Formats: sequence, C-alpha cells, structure tokens
Amino acid sequence: MSGGKIIRWKCVCAYDGAPFEGWQSQRGGRAIQDVIESRLREIFGELIRVHASGRTDAGVHARGQVFHFDAAWKHGPEKLRAALRGGLPQQIQIKSVRAVLEDFHSRFSATGKLYLYHLYLGDADPFTRPYAWAIDRPRPLDIEAMKKGAAILRGKHDFRAFSALNGPPKEDTVRDLRRLEIAKRGRHVRIAAEADGFMYKMVRSLVGALVAVGEGKLAPDDLRGLLKSGKRTTRVQTAPPRGLFLEKVFY
Amino acid sequence: MSGGKIIRWKCVCAYDGAPFEGWQSQRGGRAIQDVIESRLREIFGELIRVHASGRTDAGVHARGQVFHFDAAWKHGPEKLRAALRGGLPQQIQIKSVRAVLEDFHSRFSATGKLYLYHLYLGDADPFTRPYAWAIDRPRPLDIEAMKKGAAILRGKHDFRAFSALNGPPKEDTVRDLRRLEIAKRGRHVRIAAEADGFMYKMVRSLVGALVAVGEGKLAPDDLRGLLKSGKRTTRVQTAPPRGLFLEKVFY
Repeated sequence: MSGGKIIRWKCVCAYDGAPFEGWQSQRGGRAIQDVIESRLREIFGELIRVHASGRTDAGVHARGQVFHFDAAWKHGPEKLRAALRGGLPQQIQIKSVRAVLEDFHSRFSATGKLYLYHLYLGDADPFTRPYAWAIDRPRPLDIEAMKKGAAILRGKHDFRAFSALNGPPKEDTVRDLRRLEIAKRGRHVRIAAEADGFMYKMVRSLVGALVAVGEGKLAPDDLRGLLKSGKRTTRVQTAPPRGLFLEKVFY
Repeated sequence: MSGGKIIRWKCVCAYDGAPFEGWQSQRGGRAIQDVIESRLREIFGELIRVHASGRTDAGVHARGQVFHFDAAWKHGPEKLRAALRGGLPQQIQIKSVRAVLEDFHSRFSATGKLYLYHLYLGDADPFTRPYAWAIDRPRPLDIEAMKKGAAILRGKHDFRAFSALNGPPKEDTVRDLRRLEIAKRGRHVRIAAEADGFMYKMVRSLVGALVAVGEGKLAPDDLRGLLKSGKRTTRVQTAPPRGLFLEKVFY
C-alpha cells in the first residue's frame, strides 16, 4: 500500500491483558494479536502477520512485549508508530517501532525474558485489584521463607514440575532461572523472574509455589523435591494471570 | 430483614469511576449509588437510600468517598461490611463500615475534602491512561509557573470563575482552598486540592487553569484576574474526569 522495499519492523508494546483473550490469535478476534493485525490491515490494506516473543495467556499484562512484522513503508518508524497508535484501543500501547535486519526474529533471537508478578497482602482497592493477586488472610505471608524458596529455585534446573506440560518428556525443560527475587514494600510484594526462556505457565507456577511456601503449606526444601520429581502435581498451584507482567525481552 | 433497632452506618468506599455514570443515581441504574443500593436491597429486602458526602461525576474515581444509610442490622459492622463486599463488582470497594450517631450526615457533617489529580507528561501506558490526564506535547509543562499559579489560588476566595455554575450569583461561591500543591516525580505530576467544600467541577477547573499556566496559555497572574472577574469563561478548561480522585472527606 505504502510502496517501497519490504522492511522488518521490531515493535515494543504494552497492554492491559484484562479485556483480551491473550496474545495469540483467536477465532473470536479478541486476542491482542488480532487487534494489532486488524490495525495493520487498515494501514496496509492487506493481511500482515505479526510474530511475538511468545504468547501471553488471557489476562496477563505486558509492559515490554516485542513483536515483528514485514511491510513496505517508506515514511520512517515514527510515522509508522503514529499510524499504529491511532487506531488501537487504549489498552494497547505501541512504545517503540524500529527497522531491524531481516534475520531478527522476536521469538528466536530472544536471549531472555523478565517477568514481574505482583501480590497484594490484604483487601486490594479497585486500582490494585486488576493488577495483583490479592491475598487477604489473617496470617501474613512468611516472606523470609519465600526468599529461601526462591534461592532454591534460582539457577539452571529442569523446571518440568513448574510447567503446564503433560505429555512425555520429549521437550527440553531445562531453563536457567537467572533471577528470582522477592521484594516487599508495605502491603505490596513483587516477584521478579528472569530466565533464558520460560515454559507455558512457568512463572505463575513458580509464584504459586512460592505463595504456598509463604502460607506454610510447603516448606522451602519441598521445592527441591518438586524440582527433582520432574512432575507437575496439584501441590503446585497456578497463580492468577492478573498479577503477571511481561516486563522485558532481552536480545 | 435483619431485625433490631435502626442504626446509622457510615461507610468509606473506593471506586474506579470508569465503568459508572458517576455517583448519583441514574435512570439506567449504572451509577455507583444504584449499584450499592441494589446490593443493600439484596441484603435487607427493601429499598435503603444511601447518602454520600457529595456526588462525583462520571469517570471520576474515589479512594475515600463517604456515604451513610439507616438500617436495622444486629450482627455488627464487620459482618455488614462482608455482606456488602460479597455482592459488589470489583470496581467498588467498601473500605470500612461503622455505626455512628444519628446526627451524623455524610454531606452536612463534612468539614472539608481532599482531592488528588494526576497528570502524566508523555504517552501514558495502558496502566496509567485510565487514571491520569496524559499531556503528550513536545514542550514540557512549566511546573514552576504552575506553582506560582497555585499560590495565587490558595486561600479564601470567590471561586465562581472556577465552577460550572451558570445562573445568577445566588449561591455562596466563597470557598477556603486550604491546600493546592503541585508535586512532580519523573513524568508524574500530582495536584492536591483541599478545601472546606468544592463546587461542581471546581477541582477539574482549577486543574485545567493550572495546566493552561503550565503550557504558557495563561500567566500565573491571569488567575488573579479570573478570580476577581467572578465569571466562568472559555479561558478556563475543565480537566478530564479520569485523573481525579476523591481522596478523603474530613469530619
């Protein structure tokens, strides 16, 4: 539509996951990918597929999701960003657009990802509720035990027990969890998880297990046993999506 | 329904104003008052009117709105709070419930109110957009000029020029603006306004005028002239509701 040479564009975006059916294209068209592709169709007059660093589940938020697409556009990245922004709902923000070499791939070129998970201890107000897992119980979470648990989980392990994989162990389930940190400020608890890659529901499973440790349902050392077992059990709960943010993708 | 003596209950609540048609009861039933009264009807089996410290406009948020109602309930305030909470949407939070003397009135007993208004300088992300007025212009706001303007507005004045009143000057339009402070942290600017009372759209008009000063459209001294004029003109814009929070009502 806009003519010229086909260029690969790398975009960083943020989104509030609540109103969408996750990143990946859905039949109903209410996935974030669908909304962005629909905007690209308006701009370019044809279907342009976008490829993200990975999908995020329904309800999961992002401050630094990365996607790329190929399109002929001769007016530069800032005007492309403005064109994209113009037609997107306020829950999706295009933070940056730049031209990259054609061997760049938002998923395969990624060297790591950082996720943040937010807990709130108490009855969260309406401004915190959509963005945190509110844990409103009489007994406070044992943050020190959670930090001990995090120290056990950090490092290079087979994280199969903390994924949502069910089938036979074909897939490589070893990941290098470079960072797993718990910081408490008042009633807010933030869990930062950085790894070379994450499996399906892995961050939310790690958070679920850490919260179980904080509640005294699991001892920190139980996490060692879970890691070794290589099996997902009901002892590991999955934390709700609304507290999870894809913060940054590293290249 | 619950029997016993009729008691006056004072409630503090928070709400995200975005999905509602303001505080005050509307025909469509999508006002915050409607939603709370509908929950009270479920609990008590009859219409129970609630009375707030004042209405908030469509889209305005609250962290400390106060309302009261009279009802016979013999199970204590904590159980009443739990009953209320149970049936309210997540955008409304009942923060506290307590029994008060029957001469307490959430509006007429109030001695003052504190509002906060949030500006964001730049392209706000999807988590800030619903709760701030994003001012995304090449030239930064002149915060020092805004502070000078705030100093002129502070104190006891006739604020008719900063209200949405149109009719003849029957009403008392003198208010004591005890506090009007501007604080900048990074790209976030917070305006705190506290007075013995506010007129309709007064905070948003004060904010609109201060932003005009920050943009250089008005000089700080122009605010003195506007105050003296006693007339609302198009030189005073009304800031959008989404940045406004009713923070606290004083008694």
